[in-house]
Amino acid sequence: MLHEAIGQWGKILGADAVKSDDVTVDRYARTTAPRGTAPAAVLWPQRTEQVQQIVRIAVRFRVPLYPISRGRNWGYGDACAPQDGQVIIDLRRMNRIVELNRELAYAVIEPGVSQQQLHDHLESSGNDLWMDATGAGPDASVVGNTLERGFGHTPCGDHFANTCGMRIVLADASVLDTGFGHVPGAHATYCYPYGIGPGLDGLFCQSNLGIVTRVGVWLNRRPQAMRAVFASTSSDDDLVDLIDRLRELRLAGLLRSAVHVANDLRLLSSRVDAATSRPLSPGDRQRLRKVHGVGAWNVSSAIYGTRTTVAAAGLQVKKTLRSYRVVSLNDAKLRRAKRAGALLGLFGMGANLRALISVVEPAFEMLKGRPVDAFVRDILPHATCPSESGSLDPLDYHTGLIWVSPVAPAQGDHARRLIQLMEPIYNRFGFDLPVTFTLVTERALSAVTNISFNRRDCEQTERAAACYDELMRTLMDAGYPPYRTGPAGFKRIRTDSPFWHAAQRIKHALDPHGIISPGRYLD
Amino acid sequence: MLHEAIGQWGKILGADAVKSDDVTVDRYARTTAPRGTAPAAVLWPQRTEQVQQIVRIAVRFRVPLYPISRGRNWGYGDACAPQDGQVIIDLRRMNRIVELNRELAYAVIEPGVSQQQLHDHLESSGNDLWMDATGAGPDASVVGNTLERGFGHTPCGDHFANTCGMRIVLADASVLDTGFGHVPGAHATYCYPYGIGPGLDGLFCQSNLGIVTRVGVWLNRRPQAMRAVFASTSSDDDLVDLIDRLRELRLAGLLRSAVHVANDLRLLSSRVDAATSRPLSPGDRQRLRKVHGVGAWNVSSAIYGTRTTVAAAGLQVKKTLRSYRVVSLNDAKLRRAKRAGALLGLFGMGANLRALISVVEPAFEMLKGRPVDAFVRDILPHATCPSESGSLDPLDYHTGLIWVSPVAPAQGDHARRLIQLMEPIYNRFGFDLPVTFTLVTERALSAVTNISFNRRDCEQTERAAACYDELMRTLMDAGYPPYRTGPAGFKRIRTDSPFWHAAQRIKHALDPHGIISPGRYLD
Repeated sequence: MLHEAIGQWGKILGADAVKSDDVTVDRYARTTAPRGTAPAAVLWPQRTEQVQQIVRIAVRFRVPLYPISRGRNWGYGDACAPQDGQVIIDLRRMNRIVELNRELAYAVIEPGVSQQQLHDHLESSGNDLWMDATGAGPDASVVGNTLERGFGHTPCGDHFANTCGMRIVLADASVLDTGFGHVPGAHATYCYPYGIGPGLDGLFCQSNLGIVTRVGVWLNRRPQAMRAVFASTSSDDDLVDLIDRLRELRLAGLLRSAVHVANDLRLLSSRVDAATSRPLSPGDRQRLRKVHGVGAWNVSSAIYGTRTTVAAAGLQVKKTLRSYRVVSLNDAKLRRAKRAGALLGLFGMGANLRALISVVEPAFEMLKGRPVDAFVRDILPHATCPSESGSLDPLDYHTGLIWVSPVAPAQGDHARRLIQLMEPIYNRFGFDLPVTFTLVTERALSAVTNISFNRRDCEQTERAAACYDELMRTLMDAGYPPYRTGPAGFKRIRTDSPFWHAAQRIKHALDPHGIISPGRYLD
Repeated sequence: MLHEAIGQWGKILGADAVKSDDVTVDRYARTTAPRGTAPAAVLWPQRTEQVQQIVRIAVRFRVPLYPISRGRNWGYGDACAPQDGQVIIDLRRMNRIVELNRELAYAVIEPGVSQQQLHDHLESSGNDLWMDATGAGPDASVVGNTLERGFGHTPCGDHFANTCGMRIVLADASVLDTGFGHVPGAHATYCYPYGIGPGLDGLFCQSNLGIVTRVGVWLNRRPQAMRAVFASTSSDDDLVDLIDRLRELRLAGLLRSAVHVANDLRLLSSRVDAATSRPLSPGDRQRLRKVHGVGAWNVSSAIYGTRTTVAAAGLQVKKTLRSYRVVSLNDAKLRRAKRAGALLGLFGMGANLRALISVVEPAFEMLKGRPVDAFVRDILPHATCPSESGSLDPLDYHTGLIWVSPVAPAQGDHARRLIQLMEPIYNRFGFDLPVTFTLVTERALSAVTNISFNRRDCEQTERAAACYDELMRTLMDAGYPPYRTGPAGFKRIRTDSPFWHAAQRIKHALDPHGIISPGRYLD
């Protein structure tokens, strides 16, 4: 049956868009997880109509499909389906920016559009709009991240909340437009997210209910003024107070974007050589903080507005965080600092300043919606494997990576509790706990942590898998489920509840033969 | 079958909670629409478990149910089901405020909780939180409005966007908790809206897929400072420029709440006596604007923050709107104005000031999240029917009312086009066009208009129905569907599209016997 399907897909898509050779299969079977899966074939459609045709053939021959946007879902399953033998639809060739509406500050894009592509397009189209970027790097898909409810750093940082109007191919090959998209000639499809009648958009996040081929993405109007606010604390114990203060700044509307609070290990991860034994001891951490000018907890946030409102809000933020070291930065100040660093370099000085700039600059760029590769570099084991090829794909380095991202109320006590739950487990299995708390709404934080390991080391890989299992069990039991997971987590997050039963009934109603991504969040 | 069901419901709920007598049926059959429907019976459960029992019995005897929150959906169908013979579940006795979390600024409430009840509870619980209220009056349900995607005036003004965590009784009598609500002991249920896996919340807005019995509602942290900004224009033509400027203030984050722009007729509606012939002539409108100190277009908005950020943003807003008359107002200034008005009154003067205060004060209160009755009074035909009883229920006055609320991009040209499309139709049928444009997101506006008529006048009622039909046909054809509708609109908004087919398949999967609200948005 697969053979017939591949033949028919070839007729429709052309031979260069259908592959099932070993090289291709092996390439798409690569994973950062302890265990991956191998696809039966890979398809590269270019248009929504081709996706419809692919689905019709898949239903006829009962071949399961697994759509990916660009396959950059590192640490959350990469490009791998939950089971072997599914046919990957790689949507990277569907990379049109269908519309850019500068007055209304939105773009309509396909899943193949990368962060860099959208950013470049905005820059060359008047440069009056800023996208929101995640740390997944320039090559990652904007749509793919949105459908997993990723988040970034600007006022449009909650990606799903800043999505409006979706186009989806269902398992019956029909094309569903959400919101007002199904009303002929509707003007507000990409301005008003709800349409009329039930809201269906949520169904297509973290699920397997359809294949999204187009999404409206809200953009930031480039502000008259922007000021980054970085803060750091000297003691681990400051976390509780810090989170509570940041929540109040979020609730007051003084900080309108996702605020990130990283621990020392997050910032040090790429700066500690591989020879150092892990987990790092408290003494090592203290020493390394001093060497690299990093705090126990490190805040990255920004204020956007006019010069006067930014100055006024900046004062209030500084006042609220006055017990901590606070540095604020705008374009001019960063330029001056870089000049000074370069100048000092001529005299063999200024290494500290340049080190600080190297930490701060990528965060500063992200606060302006510019995708940077610094955070991808952080997860590469470059100390053992320098990226001379120039590749920034963790899969090229046998990088082992599992994200564990529990959600909690934005309260200091909960943040501390998460550390108390997770750090002993990470350490017991021999891993450090790098963590970034992101206040993704005014009331909630996601604790983004990761197990980093060397996939060429079997023992380490098994240890990582066991560590993940214990973390997930512990966090679910303690009432801190993750905001997102890879295949290893799909079973763990399912409860025997009406929620999942209803979702599964919806799956059966929309995809009775289970053609689209069986096993992905839903069966 | 109905008879048996009523008998069994009586056993479960008690006799005082099940009624099918003529007085009750007639009471719930009352409507502001040209045509209403009569229920077969009315039930008043008090707890979610009772709703489950009601559903079980309804399925057994195949009796359709029609849940309402408090039945205050005036102008959008009131308490009436789309068809005769459905059994109303009036949830007004489910009026518990289940939780108030002051630190995280949310409340968990049942559908019977009225705006006034929630407001009073917040005021007596520390008064550090402000709800968002709609103009539907103190007696309207908070949950009911949210499920219809209503909106208010504060930063939490987009009600569905400020909803987090829902409890729903499905047609199989199971209880579905959305977001993280189905994870035992989850802490972030009311802080993080998405949970993990597909998002189901949207399904239960404007639909018939379940009976919502509990909702988490986000509240505003009471700001250190708040300043209302009112602006008015002298010419009708100013609308285009005004809307474009307001959109930019929204996109810049300087105005963080829903901004309302009302025409003269909206503000004059309750100030013109019934003897005046309708529609008002341009000359009449000019004269009345002068008499009542009302502009062609009238903006109500506010800035929230600290004293310094409010001052800074206030300056920028004033500068942006400098071609118009702008008045800003805070608590102290309003108090002083009221004192001055009262003082002048002692000398028989100050009538103009007092008239202005009477227009501005209700809007000011709403900007602080206080539910007021002024906007309900506006739709009462009190010129012909003074409300001596004290009742504020339009149904007590044979008020005829149909809301027509098309959505457009937040662009001046679209706002003007909506007026050009609607005003001739309103006028041709002998009605005025009162309109409020609300910038409900940064990019979209809802144009809330209404046909007001006297239901005791058959000719006028038929005219209103015909006017509505033509408005809806015209708006749908022109690409401006409404954000919400009553039963008369349910058929008009349905397109023959995969959107509605998918929604209907979901309905069938969750409610195969069509027990819950058949005909409401979906069949």
